[in-house]
Amino acid sequence: MRISELSSRTGVSAPLIKFYVREGLLPAAERTGHNRTEYDEQHVARLVLIRSLVDVGGLSLAAARRVLDAIDDADLPLAEVLGVAQGALPRPAAPATPESLDRVRAVTTGRGWHVHDDNPGLEAAAAVLDGWARVGRGDLAAGLERYAQAAAVVAEADLDAVEAIVQSDGDRSRAAETVVVGTVLGDTLMAGLRRMAQEDASVRRYGGGPPDDHVPAPSTRSAAAGAAR
Amino acid sequence: MRISELSSRTGVSAPLIKFYVREGLLPAAERTGHNRTEYDEQHVARLVLIRSLVDVGGLSLAAARRVLDAIDDADLPLAEVLGVAQGALPRPAAPATPESLDRVRAVTTGRGWHVHDDNPGLEAAAAVLDGWARVGRGDLAAGLERYAQAAAVVAEADLDAVEAIVQSDGDRSRAAETVVVGTVLGDTLMAGLRRMAQEDASVRRYGGGPPDDHVPAPSTRSAAAGAAR
Repeated sequence: MRISELSSRTGVSAPLIKFYVREGLLPAAERTGHNRTEYDEQHVARLVLIRSLVDVGGLSLAAARRVLDAIDDADLPLAEVLGVAQGALPRPAAPATPESLDRVRAVTTGRGWHVHDDNPGLEAAAAVLDGWARVGRGDLAAGLERYAQAAAVVAEADLDAVEAIVQSDGDRSRAAETVVVGTVLGDTLMAGLRRMAQEDASVRRYGGGPPDDHVPAPSTRSAAAGAAR
Repeated sequence: MRISELSSRTGVSAPLIKFYVREGLLPAAERTGHNRTEYDEQHVARLVLIRSLVDVGGLSLAAARRVLDAIDDADLPLAEVLGVAQGALPRPAAPATPESLDRVRAVTTGRGWHVHDDNPGLEAAAAVLDGWARVGRGDLAAGLERYAQAAAVVAEADLDAVEAIVQSDGDRSRAAETVVVGTVLGDTLMAGLRRMAQEDASVRRYGGGPPDDHVPAPSTRSAAAGAAR
């Protein structure tokens, strides 16, 4: 298919398609004649994957390229693809303190988790404890345990999803895509559901009754508060 | 204090401090004489807060300014500060499909959650379902339920943390800061712990024995796989 058809089928503009090819995220079209190139179904699938990682998952182009390379490397075992996808987590600007690293390790060890010191999640979680301590907040110990408990629930769901894909078609490339997309999109899914669960917990604790009557939505709440002043 | 002392106490460079003042994130220094300005402890505290939101939480400057404004607005009830902090969630590039919005609503309704349609988490979670469907993966229904279950655990921990702060000093401004910092940093904390829980779940299912002996860390795994080829 021509680039115009690829564009209309994926919703990605032609200039952006050319940009992805230049950046090495999308394979070049096959040259089928003078001044004529052909894109195929693989280009459609790859573009869809790129948009999921970048638009929905919020990955940088560099991070997206790393995980796409891992998917394409047929010799890379799935466990290693997962490692690459995990590394797509944004790294904190400053290294975490040894105290915070130890506190996170205490929680994971306490739960019997097998985790290496270079799992990117360790540094990310420890940097959060540092950020919390810097703004002078109270002890986070109880919250940390409950976050870890929730993370275990989510990780089991993640692994089940991978297993279902592997068993249903056994295609290594599809399984690798699932691992990557699931790892990246799972963060966004969790953040979204957490926002909703917070609203519900807030209504339950601080009142509101039926939400439509008594708890104005966030965007209208501010306006109402402004009008009342 | 002079800008040099503010810089050394917070680890933020003088040019970056001036940038934050220009951008409206940090109040200007008090002018105390000809060509002389003074920063105080409030500037230290605010800079620390800015760094947590931007460096650790990954907020854009625009999003950080919105949540700082909400903290500073003494008339804004805490529930509304929470709404502003929730809006700091990155918005998906494309709107979610009605089908995916309905699927997320079905889960939250099924759990009896009180959630408004303009909670930013709804669109974020629905966009993830769309991304998942576009890459052609299997049904996410079971995973979605377990993510929601985990989100409820985390949200209760979040609200408990806010309540502890409110009860310990009753300072509305501190409580507002806690709500904002906790909302933003909680996403990163969860993403980090999820990475670790995934590694643990993967070791349990697919083997490895003692991790130090049998499961090379992600960064060395790839090298080992390459050497074995």
